[in-house]
Amino acid sequence: MSGNTFGTLYCVTSFGESHGPAYGGVVDGCPPGLALEAADIQKELDRRKPGASRHVTQRRESDAIEILSGVFQGRTTGTAIGFLIRNEDARAKDYAAIAQKFRPGHADYTYLMKYGVRDARGGGRASARETVVRVAAGAIAKKWLAERYGVRIRGYLAQLGPRSIELRDWDAVDSNPFFCPDPAVVPELERFMDELRASGDSCGARVNVVASGVPPGWGEPVYGRLDADIAAAMMSINAVKGLEIGAGFAAVAQKGSEHGDEMSPEGFLSNNNGGVLGGISSGQDVAVSIALKPTSSIRLPRRTLDVKGEATTVATAGRHDPCVGLRATPIAEAMLACVLMDHALRHRAQCADVTPPLAPVPGRKG
Amino acid sequence: MSGNTFGTLYCVTSFGESHGPAYGGVVDGCPPGLALEAADIQKELDRRKPGASRHVTQRRESDAIEILSGVFQGRTTGTAIGFLIRNEDARAKDYAAIAQKFRPGHADYTYLMKYGVRDARGGGRASARETVVRVAAGAIAKKWLAERYGVRIRGYLAQLGPRSIELRDWDAVDSNPFFCPDPAVVPELERFMDELRASGDSCGARVNVVASGVPPGWGEPVYGRLDADIAAAMMSINAVKGLEIGAGFAAVAQKGSEHGDEMSPEGFLSNNNGGVLGGISSGQDVAVSIALKPTSSIRLPRRTLDVKGEATTVATAGRHDPCVGLRATPIAEAMLACVLMDHALRHRAQCADVTPPLAPVPGRKG
Amino acid sequence: MSGNTFGTLYCVTSFGESHGPAYGGVVDGCPPGLALEAADIQKELDRRKPGASRHVTQRRESDAIEILSGVFQGRTTGTAIGFLIRNEDARAKDYAAIAQKFRPGHADYTYLMKYGVRDARGGGRASARETVVRVAAGAIAKKWLAERYGVRIRGYLAQLGPRSIELRDWDAVDSNPFFCPDPAVVPELERFMDELRASGDSCGARVNVVASGVPPGWGEPVYGRLDADIAAAMMSINAVKGLEIGAGFAAVAQKGSEHGDEMSPEGFLSNNNGGVLGGISSGQDVAVSIALKPTSSIRLPRRTLDVKGEATTVATAGRHDPCVGLRATPIAEAMLACVLMDHALRHRAQCADVTPPLAPVPGRKG
Amino acid sequence: MSGNTFGTLYCVTSFGESHGPAYGGVVDGCPPGLALEAADIQKELDRRKPGASRHVTQRRESDAIEILSGVFQGRTTGTAIGFLIRNEDARAKDYAAIAQKFRPGHADYTYLMKYGVRDARGGGRASARETVVRVAAGAIAKKWLAERYGVRIRGYLAQLGPRSIELRDWDAVDSNPFFCPDPAVVPELERFMDELRASGDSCGARVNVVASGVPPGWGEPVYGRLDADIAAAMMSINAVKGLEIGAGFAAVAQKGSEHGDEMSPEGFLSNNNGGVLGGISSGQDVAVSIALKPTSSIRLPRRTLDVKGEATTVATAGRHDPCVGLRATPIAEAMLACVLMDHALRHRAQCADVTPPLAPVPGRKG
Repeated sequence: MSGNTFGTLYCVTSFGESHGPAYGGVVDGCPPGLALEAADIQKELDRRKPGASRHVTQRRESDAIEILSGVFQGRTTGTAIGFLIRNEDARAKDYAAIAQKFRPGHADYTYLMKYGVRDARGGGRASARETVVRVAAGAIAKKWLAERYGVRIRGYLAQLGPRSIELRDWDAVDSNPFFCPDPAVVPELERFMDELRASGDSCGARVNVVASGVPPGWGEPVYGRLDADIAAAMMSINAVKGLEIGAGFAAVAQKGSEHGDEMSPEGFLSNNNGGVLGGISSGQDVAVSIALKPTSSIRLPRRTLDVKGEATTVATAGRHDPCVGLRATPIAEAMLACVLMDHALRHRAQCADVTPPLAPVPGRKG
Repeated sequence: MSGNTFGTLYCVTSFGESHGPAYGGVVDGCPPGLALEAADIQKELDRRKPGASRHVTQRRESDAIEILSGVFQGRTTGTAIGFLIRNEDARAKDYAAIAQKFRPGHADYTYLMKYGVRDARGGGRASARETVVRVAAGAIAKKWLAERYGVRIRGYLAQLGPRSIELRDWDAVDSNPFFCPDPAVVPELERFMDELRASGDSCGARVNVVASGVPPGWGEPVYGRLDADIAAAMMSINAVKGLEIGAGFAAVAQKGSEHGDEMSPEGFLSNNNGGVLGGISSGQDVAVSIALKPTSSIRLPRRTLDVKGEATTVATAGRHDPCVGLRATPIAEAMLACVLMDHALRHRAQCADVTPPLAPVPGRKG
Repeated sequence: MSGNTFGTLYCVTSFGESHGPAYGGVVDGCPPGLALEAADIQKELDRRKPGASRHVTQRRESDAIEILSGVFQGRTTGTAIGFLIRNEDARAKDYAAIAQKFRPGHADYTYLMKYGVRDARGGGRASARETVVRVAAGAIAKKWLAERYGVRIRGYLAQLGPRSIELRDWDAVDSNPFFCPDPAVVPELERFMDELRASGDSCGARVNVVASGVPPGWGEPVYGRLDADIAAAMMSINAVKGLEIGAGFAAVAQKGSEHGDEMSPEGFLSNNNGGVLGGISSGQDVAVSIALKPTSSIRLPRRTLDVKGEATTVATAGRHDPCVGLRATPIAEAMLACVLMDHALRHRAQCADVTPPLAPVPGRKG
Repeated sequence: MSGNTFGTLYCVTSFGESHGPAYGGVVDGCPPGLALEAADIQKELDRRKPGASRHVTQRRESDAIEILSGVFQGRTTGTAIGFLIRNEDARAKDYAAIAQKFRPGHADYTYLMKYGVRDARGGGRASARETVVRVAAGAIAKKWLAERYGVRIRGYLAQLGPRSIELRDWDAVDSNPFFCPDPAVVPELERFMDELRASGDSCGARVNVVASGVPPGWGEPVYGRLDADIAAAMMSINAVKGLEIGAGFAAVAQKGSEHGDEMSPEGFLSNNNGGVLGGISSGQDVAVSIALKPTSSIRLPRRTLDVKGEATTVATAGRHDPCVGLRATPIAEAMLACVLMDHALRHRAQCADVTPPLAPVPGRKG
């Protein structure tokens, strides 16, 4: 193990580098009998794909997935699902100019200090291109959760740089290149991104993800909490620096009489808990919000060191997303899906024979 | 497994309930030869202990630890360290009035839905009293990290309800019951807590934790990131609803030219990364901030359901912390210590033979 | 982790040393609602207890178990079950004479080379007294397996030194101090042990364990095989040097036409597979056989080294089992129970929704 | 997880089916800086390859490996090593005749009962062809163990059907298609196999594996024993039904005065322990012996059931190894290598700072 597998029962193992021959993964633990074909995964990969608009990296990748095992006659067999996504448009020479320099805010320094090996080509293993594997694994989890439990997982861009965005229309999310849930704001976002790109700088973003239909009872006490596993999964996404569940940091200034979600026969009256109480799902929407930092590879020159420790400056000319957050929505959805599926399996392992003494309390309406 | 063990190589297993006979734990993976006696752990437990001021629960527990194994002639042997902390002041009858009612914001509902079992006495396994085990395990990790690598881990109260607190004096932190790093603010905090307690309500808090002296290279790429494991560890603490590393949510509104920490021969020029880049420690201070929600057990009446699903109201008369965040500082320090020790061991397993090509870049001064 | 936890979903964590204050353990993952009290575990501990006959160590331990958590009002709650067994009759001074010498065949040399620490008192962590924790964990697993799936797990002494023993009467097993399934042989075994003890030497043993009623489908392909996990569990018992499942080593000389168990509508016609095919339970009896080496602590003098590497001789005068295999039957049963329960939970996690297309084929009659 | 990953720090994840498009694997945790190219792995794959003699399956596979990640400029980077081996000669139609029938001794019945899915093509995931992944992972482990610690791992055929074989010449092992260490016996083995093949039957085998140069101290007490992990690894190989370490089952009839390996300044005087004492390596040769059952796919007709549970007979006409043990030597070597490397990493994680008080005692000469 050096960190490339996650999950306890729904396990995802990932490999690949940005400029190597391919990315690939192994999903182990998927129940047998799930209808699955490459197209089910491809549609999620296409949502994450680079080159889909002028606002993201112009690297051209089809991100076509090949399923290598674990599916027979259109159904999962219960054995390991191996898959492969070839890299098609790697341009290692783009990195010649920065091969000997650290980029401020980039992992190139820490990887070198850890491994003593420098693979400057496109970030190597640290590239956000690795998230293609997560999206593939998440696509399978999403499908199973939807078919087996009616769980629906959706996300959207909640802030771009300084601009907050309200959730006005779920249907709008997939109709613009920002996953923006407010169509009226899209032109402003386009202008913002055009100016940002022209300036050679980058910006951060906030992405919200919501899972609806999660039954109460998923999660484990103390360390194996559902929210702890969600936190790890989200923080493992490239560029994430913060995370909230439910009220998040707003809970600091709340009173207990305000924060604690009251219950009535009609259901919960609010959702400050964000769908998790004591580490176990409450049956309300699981609501997660993440902060993504600005891309570290920018065209503006910055003070840095070279690999010998000498002072220099660096500016990055390669193809990069000026805002990694723009493509983060399907990734965050995928990670949430994987964690929920893992806990669904863990829950029924231990508690398959439990009959709770009352019916689930409905989540807050609206 | 149902969530009561954490860590890959420095493993902590916990058991116990608030009103059962005892809490206990097993620390597995500690290197042999560490000088260790009960007093080393006790001093950290005493920092977390209930009843230490009028602002926290008045339950009287000595929290005296008994080490049962893994230490011989004052040194760790390398085998499992078992320890026990007896409960002394459990009052199960306090819970008679609420035995049949859910407390808004409490885990009593989700535990019942998961396990079909109701142990209303003091929260059962969901009680924050479980953190006594974490603090014990963290005390061992702190000691080893300090002696072996010179790592120092400290925390403080950064916000109480609506009141932000600046870090003015590390030495002040342990001289007041709030872990407040600004002595001038303490009287105000006391008034605030007195009023809060009188009102029967509770409030949230923010706690910051910092680890200094962490060498670059700890952490693993992709899923086993140092920050991902920190996130899980922090989110597993009772009442935590949000978490930031480095710039955290402020990174959303930053430009890349502002966020990326520049490097010079004198060291990093800022620490927006919070000590972690690409999931691997950068050698800068590891800086973590967590949001704790207000206590759910309050004296004010609230709308809720009973265990049959009937509408009722509940008010909690037992002994409770009006702000769990007040005692969270040593807990958060402990969790950070455990994660760092785990990654120290994981790092040297894989990379013991690595010699990085340059000396570590110093962290930002001041 | 340093090896003191096992199991994926039914997890057992163990601590304690032979001459420390106590042994204890944590069972995590037990389903909620199982009726459980200390007496359920105590009856299995009493089967393993030292001092029960003149043929085993004369150390006097009541091995009384205290359950510390995870059980409320006589039922498991689904949270971690912590338990403690105090040591009562440790005599550290017995070990003064051998404190500086390695015992041939003992782990004292390897522990010292690994940890650099020497705890000569009674073998420290390497003592077979640790198996008290396994038997406790196994008692819970046995009870759950019996009540939930009708699985029955039994073992017996199949060979003592050179003397093979036939399974003639399951009911006889618990009526003699050898777990001997052939009452007619018991007097011979007593004479053998009396002479062995008088000689100052020790001997090996073979123990067979059988689980009946295991449904087909438990186990996982490739690495997580049921038989692989059984092998690890058995080999982790002190003194075990070999293991067979089903036909075992006899399969080497069998032809395929002889080994492959034919099937008929009345059931399997033989059980060479030992209840496992392709790592998955076949529904037949799971049949395991283990080889236990002779005790290394003997009164006869032997050539050895002291801790400085100087040549010397050693003879061990303390209280020791002349044949650890005599008390191994309940231990082996316990390990098999833990592995089966773990796989029962793992199986239903992934395959809870599977309906096999045919009814289970019965195991071989008689 | 459903069993397709093994190892704690040196982790191998495997996927693929006999008649799917490919096998592949991910090795995670390999230290950085190891010189590695495809040829290093290929040479071990070629030892295991089908079609190498008339005595094994005539399926024609080049088993050419493609390394997809984790290696840069001829050295491991420390990140996940993904690799792929395409299937080239699958003939699914060979299985039409047996598609609806269970083969006695085969996993086809248990897979169907577990997963409710039937992939009769070549055994699907249960095919011994999966061992190609193990051999690849083992090749990397072998190389690292040899270069870093001087460990050498070798195996040989110790019994074919009823015929025992003595270890006479290590150099002969790779010069005949049986991995037979006694060249004089090879003609007899060839005659035996020719007759067996002609008869339509199959036979079992015993394979011995030895690791030399393992330093003392690898392994963990109690459950994480080196021998327990070796046992699981060996038992996870297709067709293995028994396993011995050191004296193995012979230890049952040994006296303690005979079994316990005496020590002298010149070294251990015997190796009954088989290189492991108390679960920790002793510095002697790690000596393992495994029993492989006869192949279940044979041409002779046998009584069985079809997938509807109706009585029938089955005979298997496809291409099969009449003795899977013939190709098991490189597989067993690979599994031992993986376990040893895993424990080497685990050991230095915990005990990197230990200096044992005496020099390692040499293993038995000759």
